[in-house]
Amino acid sequence: MPTFDTVAFDADDTLWHSERYYAQTQAEFTKLLAHYRDEEYIHAHLYEVESRNIQHFGYGVKGFALSMIETAVELTEGRVSGNDVKAIITLARNMLSADIELLDGVSETIAQLAERHRLMVITKGDLLDQEKKIQRSGLRKYFHRIEIVSEKTRESYARLLAEHSIATQKFFMVGNSLRSDILPILELGGSAAYIPYEITWQHETAETPGGDAGFHQLEHIGQLPALLDQLEK
Amino acid sequence: MPTFDTVAFDADDTLWHSERYYAQTQAEFTKLLAHYRDEEYIHAHLYEVESRNIQHFGYGVKGFALSMIETAVELTEGRVSGNDVKAIITLARNMLSADIELLDGVSETIAQLAERHRLMVITKGDLLDQEKKIQRSGLRKYFHRIEIVSEKTRESYARLLAEHSIATQKFFMVGNSLRSDILPILELGGSAAYIPYEITWQHETAETPGGDAGFHQLEHIGQLPALLDQLEK
Repeated sequence: MPTFDTVAFDADDTLWHSERYYAQTQAEFTKLLAHYRDEEYIHAHLYEVESRNIQHFGYGVKGFALSMIETAVELTEGRVSGNDVKAIITLARNMLSADIELLDGVSETIAQLAERHRLMVITKGDLLDQEKKIQRSGLRKYFHRIEIVSEKTRESYARLLAEHSIATQKFFMVGNSLRSDILPILELGGSAAYIPYEITWQHETAETPGGDAGFHQLEHIGQLPALLDQLEK
Repeated sequence: MPTFDTVAFDADDTLWHSERYYAQTQAEFTKLLAHYRDEEYIHAHLYEVESRNIQHFGYGVKGFALSMIETAVELTEGRVSGNDVKAIITLARNMLSADIELLDGVSETIAQLAERHRLMVITKGDLLDQEKKIQRSGLRKYFHRIEIVSEKTRESYARLLAEHSIATQKFFMVGNSLRSDILPILELGGSAAYIPYEITWQHETAETPGGDAGFHQLEHIGQLPALLDQLEK
């Protein structure tokens, strides 16, 4: 019996690339508005609109699209063209049907860990979009459960652990967001591996916790099996 | 031990009013575009855009908002004003923060049934929106589980029943959509009560099943306890 009977993974930017599609889309969006405002101004305003909309729209591509459209109207003082608005919707639809690109080492690591642990995905975002990405990833068969949640907080993790009768000390979470994947688990007394991705959305940044026994940082998911082996000795 | 140990409810237009907010929003949307096209044309075009977008956006207010915006651009051949686009986003935000109005008899019926059965909500739509509505409804405490799914099909119900170890013959589903709440359950061999709502979205229409022993139709949720009593005799 392994020490950690359940190992749970965040999905976006932990199993597959995601933030780079947001960055690419944001670059296209900036181009559409380039004759109104400079890039920095557009980014700052978009982030402001996204932040105020998150309580209504939650996470994911659809809310991002609505925030881009609202930003475009505001920055152009209503002069944005219908065709530019339609182009923004097309950008969103393209994000939703983009190919899944797994991060290096994910396939092998997940297949290897599935032999020894019960694996879960715990992710936030749009329900349909996340379900489709998991299907298209080819990894579905390795995961015992997929949980798509509206927010990753201490409370939402505690509820999930209770629902699945998982003891906190036997739970190990892996993800690229300190704020959403790591800190809530440490607060609950669980263990977590933080694997930073090349880009972190401003909304997800947080300080690296110091001195917590349950906290581990890796450079690469391929290092995870060795870490778990070592912790279980 | 009751015959039906789990009674599951759809949420929108089964527990609380929803379609009327879509209808009100659609009326406002039609007004915005009134100098371009007549009402019938606008409704037909919106339904066409929604139908083609559902595979990308799924159900719920955010996808509805994006489809309204796309319809507005198409029907005006790109001439829709930025302010009208912003007005559409505001309509969507208003829908997401609208008060919950329970249908008549829901509070008493749910409280009564919770004494004897394990109750669930099985609904589709945007994750955050549905979670917030359940919280605001005041009914959360009566439900053992809340399941928000991207599509209500025979497969998705079969998966939920398996995950919760519920025997099909002990499962009773209640809802206002034949297509999403009733037919998949009957196909699985379960029982269901169809309670039509005053408006049915075109996408959810289906023929009433004839001669299925598990099929029941009620006029009002208040009739449900008596039906379950009778079936359990």
